[in-house]
Amino acid sequence: MTDAEAPDRKELDRLVFFSDAVIAIAITLLALELPVPEHLTSDAAAWHSLADSGGAYLMFLISFLIIGGFWRAHHGLFRHVTHLSRGLLFRNLICLLGITLIPWASKVLNDADDTQPGPVIYATVLGGVGWAFLLLLNGVARDKLLADDTPPRMLREFRQRVGLPALVFTLSIPLAFLVSAKVCSLSWISLAVLMPVAAQLGRRHDRRRAASGLESA
Amino acid sequence: MTDAEAPDRKELDRLVFFSDAVIAIAITLLALELPVPEHLTSDAAAWHSLADSGGAYLMFLISFLIIGGFWRAHHGLFRHVTHLSRGLLFRNLICLLGITLIPWASKVLNDADDTQPGPVIYATVLGGVGWAFLLLLNGVARDKLLADDTPPRMLREFRQRVGLPALVFTLSIPLAFLVSAKVCSLSWISLAVLMPVAAQLGRRHDRRRAASGLESA
Amino acid sequence: MTDAEAPDRKELDRLVFFSDAVIAIAITLLALELPVPEHLTSDAAAWHSLADSGGAYLMFLISFLIIGGFWRAHHGLFRHVTHLSRGLLFRNLICLLGITLIPWASKVLNDADDTQPGPVIYATVLGGVGWAFLLLLNGVARDKLLADDTPPRMLREFRQRVGLPALVFTLSIPLAFLVSAKVCSLSWISLAVLMPVAAQLGRRHDRRRAASGLESA
Amino acid sequence: MTDAEAPDRKELDRLVFFSDAVIAIAITLLALELPVPEHLTSDAAAWHSLADSGGAYLMFLISFLIIGGFWRAHHGLFRHVTHLSRGLLFRNLICLLGITLIPWASKVLNDADDTQPGPVIYATVLGGVGWAFLLLLNGVARDKLLADDTPPRMLREFRQRVGLPALVFTLSIPLAFLVSAKVCSLSWISLAVLMPVAAQLGRRHDRRRAASGLESA
Repeated sequence: MTDAEAPDRKELDRLVFFSDAVIAIAITLLALELPVPEHLTSDAAAWHSLADSGGAYLMFLISFLIIGGFWRAHHGLFRHVTHLSRGLLFRNLICLLGITLIPWASKVLNDADDTQPGPVIYATVLGGVGWAFLLLLNGVARDKLLADDTPPRMLREFRQRVGLPALVFTLSIPLAFLVSAKVCSLSWISLAVLMPVAAQLGRRHDRRRAASGLESA
Repeated sequence: MTDAEAPDRKELDRLVFFSDAVIAIAITLLALELPVPEHLTSDAAAWHSLADSGGAYLMFLISFLIIGGFWRAHHGLFRHVTHLSRGLLFRNLICLLGITLIPWASKVLNDADDTQPGPVIYATVLGGVGWAFLLLLNGVARDKLLADDTPPRMLREFRQRVGLPALVFTLSIPLAFLVSAKVCSLSWISLAVLMPVAAQLGRRHDRRRAASGLESA
Repeated sequence: MTDAEAPDRKELDRLVFFSDAVIAIAITLLALELPVPEHLTSDAAAWHSLADSGGAYLMFLISFLIIGGFWRAHHGLFRHVTHLSRGLLFRNLICLLGITLIPWASKVLNDADDTQPGPVIYATVLGGVGWAFLLLLNGVARDKLLADDTPPRMLREFRQRVGLPALVFTLSIPLAFLVSAKVCSLSWISLAVLMPVAAQLGRRHDRRRAASGLESA
Repeated sequence: MTDAEAPDRKELDRLVFFSDAVIAIAITLLALELPVPEHLTSDAAAWHSLADSGGAYLMFLISFLIIGGFWRAHHGLFRHVTHLSRGLLFRNLICLLGITLIPWASKVLNDADDTQPGPVIYATVLGGVGWAFLLLLNGVARDKLLADDTPPRMLREFRQRVGLPALVFTLSIPLAFLVSAKVCSLSWISLAVLMPVAAQLGRRHDRRRAASGLESA
């Protein structure tokens, strides 16, 4: 590390640290809202009450994995970031704004009882986090904040990993109004198919580019 | 870094870290209080319930950006701080006291229904954070805790960025008693005009000073 | 530290930091749920209300020590980890998932009133954290992420310290269905005997191995 | 720093970090429980509701300053700690256990309506934190974990700053039973006089010792 980079390093560490703290709190608060079984008059009634909250437990698991996945993406991106720009601080803050809303959006979706606001808010928040991360990626690319030895496929990979969910969540919003709240939520399952296919296509693209010598550094 | 500075560095890191953790928790707790739509009998009723809480969502956004802005100011100040004094720890703690009160003040303002305590408490807390940060800046200047290469305009810039909101929030408090709670809140909007104008004047002042050779380092 | 290790160090620090933040939040949230004495008409009634919540206070203490013990194990493991693998991030995340569920599981157990879900959920979450940590240990061993000077008995020690509770909690689950919820909870007390005995046997095993020269590095 | 100290440094950093996170969360959660004015039918009624909660706001301020003061003491101690022992981890954990209970103890004291449990619990928790910190100090002294250049008066100063409140809070507990809950709480005010007097006596003691050459290093 050169002397010129040292102050940026210090500040980047603080940026990363602050982000980690916010993400850690958001991921831990998820569990705070988990329902506790009621009607404890008999074992059967208690298990029934637990089963009734099944949706909430599934939502917790999904939201935990989504925030955890976001943390891994953030982690993966910032290992290559070596410089700092004014815009980076702001764009990162917008990402964190979305992250802190995920526990609330999960609660809204969970309480929604097949009305529109639940899935629409969840799709808006999750889609919003995706777009905010894309904005962060573009800021990083535009302001040339990456280390010189960053593999060129890195940004492509992140754009895809984050952009595809952003697109699916955003496109699902009109479905809630045109078709039904349920169809809107169900459309998100398509990500389970689209993500691995896109990852496969992306890797093939990288290999072809590498083979044709475009990526020889 | 000289050997004499190393122990201060270690402790400064801990001070900054503790501050970051407190700010991160306060900013994440903001979302914990967000209202969840009720009356989920129909889509229209649910959207109506969501719209009724519009003020709470706006307050969340504003408070998030205010805490985020405070974090950026703290971040910007401490990148230049290289020494530690006993007073710094205490003044920083008073800043954090104010920050932890922001989620509560937002809730009070939000529930206030045009009564005085809402805007008065919000203005007191937000103004208080501003004055506490000014106190921190003065402590940093008085105890000469800044690195030698800190640009002289830095302190001026921070004093303005933090002092102007402190002044507007403080001056708005009597408005709640003399005119009305609503006028008190509305007066804060003036910051949207005053802040950019002041930033402009400040930059012009810096340039003139630099041109007349007062700032030649 | 060689140059090749430096980037891993940076990322490992972030992994450890994120884990610490999540564990710190989970351990602090435990106290948030503690009951406050009610029926404050007389001293006797207030003390009675406090005594009625005695189980909740005991649960808090136990869960605090369990999360604290997990933190110490995590701390003890990662002091020897010097490399990072993709799987490590994911396995660590699964551990954290379990940790964030402990405050909720304590609450469920506490409210359970001798019905099955309370001890079954507590045993599942606590057992799950144990298995997740074993998975983490195996990942660390398989991907060879440990420093060269790590004492060979280290992994054995951790496997035992974490595996025995995992086993006891898991085996206690059928007891809730076959015998009763109470017997399931009571069976956990066996750990108070099994843990010191196993630690004793493990240390004897290490000494014998060391004596027979298998551990001469 | 010698090579032998480096691994301890790493782990000490993590210990300090974990402690900071727990303290930061506890101090921020204090504000989460602050009452929000009710009866918002008129300004007078709203101010009245706010004034009714005056005790809660005062308790918040006091608890904030106590946790903040504890953080400063922890900060002041660990700047001199350079080695790590197994016991240190555990003793520190017990301190944190007490800290996480402070928001709860404040709530109990606040709701107590002149019944005994409120002040008794508050005195037990606050006294307990004091005794735990004394135990930590003794562990640090016994295991010789301090840097060689630590001023000898440091431990004396901390023992006094923490021991005096521990003693006053502990001695106040029987007062709640023998006299009244109110007298128990009022006795804590004596600290406002005792602390400065003790600090004065301590400094005089240090000076006399230094003059008589007992402290010449």
